Amino acid sequence: MSGNPQPVIILVHPQMGENIGMCARAMLNCGLSRLRLVAPRDGWPQDSARATAADADLVIDGAEVFATLDQAISDCTRVFATTARERALSTPVRAVQEAAEEISGWKDASTTAILFGPEASGLDGDSVARADTLLRFPTNPGFPSLNLAQAVLLFGWEWRRAGSMEIEVGGDEPAARGDLDAFLQRLEEQLTERGFFLTEEMKPHSLRTLRSIFAKTKATEQELKFLHGMLTALTKEK
Amino acid sequence: MSGNPQPVIILVHPQMGENIGMCARAMLNCGLSRLRLVAPRDGWPQDSARATAADADLVIDGAEVFATLDQAISDCTRVFATTARERALSTPVRAVQEAAEEISGWKDASTTAILFGPEASGLDGDSVARADTLLRFPTNPGFPSLNLAQAVLLFGWEWRRAGSMEIEVGGDEPAARGDLDAFLQRLEEQLTERGFFLTEEMKPHSLRTLRSIFAKTKATEQELKFLHGMLTALTKEK
Repeated sequence: MSGNPQPVIILVHPQMGENIGMCARAMLNCGLSRLRLVAPRDGWPQDSARATAADADLVIDGAEVFATLDQAISDCTRVFATTARERALSTPVRAVQEAAEEISGWKDASTTAILFGPEASGLDGDSVARADTLLRFPTNPGFPSLNLAQAVLLFGWEWRRAGSMEIEVGGDEPAARGDLDAFLQRLEEQLTERGFFLTEEMKPHSLRTLRSIFAKTKATEQELKFLHGMLTALTKEK
Repeated sequence: MSGNPQPVIILVHPQMGENIGMCARAMLNCGLSRLRLVAPRDGWPQDSARATAADADLVIDGAEVFATLDQAISDCTRVFATTARERALSTPVRAVQEAAEEISGWKDASTTAILFGPEASGLDGDSVARADTLLRFPTNPGFPSLNLAQAVLLFGWEWRRAGSMEIEVGGDEPAARGDLDAFLQRLEEQLTERGFFLTEEMKPHSLRTLRSIFAKTKATEQELKFLHGMLTALTKEK
């Protein structure tokens, strides 16, 4: 195992237990053991996952299950989303080897989450909007699509590969995502009361954009307090 | 696709078609398309391979099948064997990232073979004895065992990763393995005639050691001619 604090691997709506097991095996091959599952399609635990995990029981037994992605990342300070497609969001993009080097240099790497989407479709827009950074795998452009466990393996491999490097990083640590979420909920309520969302159909798209913007701030606790204060001020009756 | 000449991926006695397909997919993800199969357990072609290849048809359709490993490597000049275990042989060992950097710098990378063993057991001693270099994957020592397609993926990933680097290499190119094989057969005949192999039971082990020694020489054509001449001289009637 690497002595570095390790990030959390989050599988969002994984479909097949076999694939969850193969992810667990790939994780442990690279010294990663912290697995979270968001609403796995076929429930949890699953015998098929244990079978393909090939004795990576430590990961399977320790897996945590959450009903929603927001719950799964509520104690996380940094969120990377793996995505193959170009997005309309202006979230910054990192190649997996660069991201892994960054993460391995962070004191708070243990509150970093790496999101992987369901096998068939990848992460949906709402999930991607939670990310402060997008993660790209620079595979063959003519045949780019990795399967789930192979994407997890390549992240883990690069994280392990970077583990021997010492990287100086500055800056303050972002607040936990639960705190950001509380702010965003308050913001949404205020905006809804004020008729910001013109139609109910438009609302999800607008919220996604909003969330993505604030995710990218990587706001610290102090900055969140500031944002709360700002919101209070803005919504005060004159 | 990388513009670099690409090595040949050789699966020795692969067991399940599903795994061959996943290897093909992983290869093409990394821009590798040259696949050879040595005596696949369930024959070839296999529908199960095409299914898991996920449209990597180019690799599946182009796969070449050989009855023996020696036939599969007869036109190759360099042979790497992937192996998890320590071996008694003194063949040099490279980490996959170092090997990939080396290979991507070679003019004759297209005659380089990377051997992967059967899923359950890995390469046997006779196959490993064909290698001039052993390939190691520096995974978690507490849980090192990669599945077949993931080992192929990591090699391909590192080869692709190294592709942007320019490496100067010197030295002459080794002879094709078919030529080395011809020399080894001649040597074996001569040794057998002279009672070198004390018992039939010992013979396979002795031959393996012999083969490994000569594989490590990476002998050029000129050097092989020299070795043939040497053998002729040594066995001439006085």
